[in-house]
Amino acid sequence: MSHSAQTNLARAKGVRMAHVRNGPPAVVLCSGGMDSAVTMAIARAEGYAVHALTFDYGQRHRVELRAARRVARALGAVKHLVKKIDLTAAGGFGGSVLTGPGRVPHRRHSRTGASAAIPPTYVPGRNLIFLSLAVAYAEILGAADIFIGVNAIDYSGYPDCRPEFIRAFERTARLATKAGVEGRMKTRIRTPVIRMTKAQIIRKGLALGVDFSLTHSCYDPDARGRACGQCDACRLRLKGFREAGINDPAQYVK
Amino acid sequence: MSHSAQTNLARAKGVRMAHVRNGPPAVVLCSGGMDSAVTMAIARAEGYAVHALTFDYGQRHRVELRAARRVARALGAVKHLVKKIDLTAAGGFGGSVLTGPGRVPHRRHSRTGASAAIPPTYVPGRNLIFLSLAVAYAEILGAADIFIGVNAIDYSGYPDCRPEFIRAFERTARLATKAGVEGRMKTRIRTPVIRMTKAQIIRKGLALGVDFSLTHSCYDPDARGRACGQCDACRLRLKGFREAGINDPAQYVK
Repeated sequence: MSHSAQTNLARAKGVRMAHVRNGPPAVVLCSGGMDSAVTMAIARAEGYAVHALTFDYGQRHRVELRAARRVARALGAVKHLVKKIDLTAAGGFGGSVLTGPGRVPHRRHSRTGASAAIPPTYVPGRNLIFLSLAVAYAEILGAADIFIGVNAIDYSGYPDCRPEFIRAFERTARLATKAGVEGRMKTRIRTPVIRMTKAQIIRKGLALGVDFSLTHSCYDPDARGRACGQCDACRLRLKGFREAGINDPAQYVK
Repeated sequence: MSHSAQTNLARAKGVRMAHVRNGPPAVVLCSGGMDSAVTMAIARAEGYAVHALTFDYGQRHRVELRAARRVARALGAVKHLVKKIDLTAAGGFGGSVLTGPGRVPHRRHSRTGASAAIPPTYVPGRNLIFLSLAVAYAEILGAADIFIGVNAIDYSGYPDCRPEFIRAFERTARLATKAGVEGRMKTRIRTPVIRMTKAQIIRKGLALGVDFSLTHSCYDPDARGRACGQCDACRLRLKGFREAGINDPAQYVK
């Protein structure tokens, strides 16, 4: 597809953007879920040339990798790297029901605020590892900005989604890199949806032309990739659409 | 080998230790080089059950992976995980002569203090990525301590070897993990050789029974694995042995 055809497609989808390929580069972490899709649309609307970065870490819900590819394509990422980093029990890591033995709970773990326990879907070090790889990738690309769709409002209580973690990480990243130490680049970890409710994220995404039918949230999809409707990720998603007064276009088992 | 045979072997090698397998677990990053070998010996001497972690990141000096295996075995690590994480140009990363095109400089880049430029052997985000994976691994093992053999005295000027980076990372790690947030574990990034000269590291290692003939430092070895004697890593190593008044047992091209 030509540059102008891509621009027209993006315009048709409602993405307001100054540049498609010629803006400053930004790395956008893209899981295939809603929050990272809206984050990517925001990066595009701000005029960044988006380099999407997805991790194939051995997640049991591998259907999200296909979703990530659809999202990156639809939102006009200039490049999409799917990076393999094996965090499964078989690969010596594990420690989560998403990457090792155990069942994804089909009950309410999600929460607002800082109460309740961190659920077994927590993957040790996940965002720390993903952001670290994003920092390296950004330094190689010459990108100062790294976007990540973490959310600390309607979320599962994962510690590595909270603003205090992000701030500490950003400070560390600036001390870690050659570009940072030499003063050529000040890495910024951009978290535009961190303080939004899921309903606000959905509305923002719709305003920017995000097609939520392309996204995947469920931790425990069936063989056909349909969402279970019961896990934490599904419950948070469904609650968001309900609150936004909009039908969720995702396919559910029932 | 039995526990007692291992203990005897370690004693024969001069490693003073309280426990071999029964001490608290620690993750020790093991590159196959001198500094990480001495760091591992220190962890052993402090009574930790060492879980060695080595990264196969696509380094051109792959002979260091064999050295890492020798070192971990000789120093009695209870486990040694060699983790693959492709940081090469072919894998979408690169940005270093160690993982992409370009030549390893055969001239003096090493320095004492904070002068001079960071050399092209710098690998973007390397210690940030390695430590992040170590944090995840340690959380899964239930290990509070992570040992890394960074050095900020006789070093190549890499930003991710400096104490300010390590301190910032440690703080970030404590905010990133479930174990940290729940108050069950306080991750510590242990850097016992960070302020030693290479000569001091060598003397410490000899006192702890480290066999330096097992280690590999060179960035640009020949096909037989012999060190070039000219790159930064070789120059720093040779300077250290010279200052310590000891012969370097490594094999050099000339």
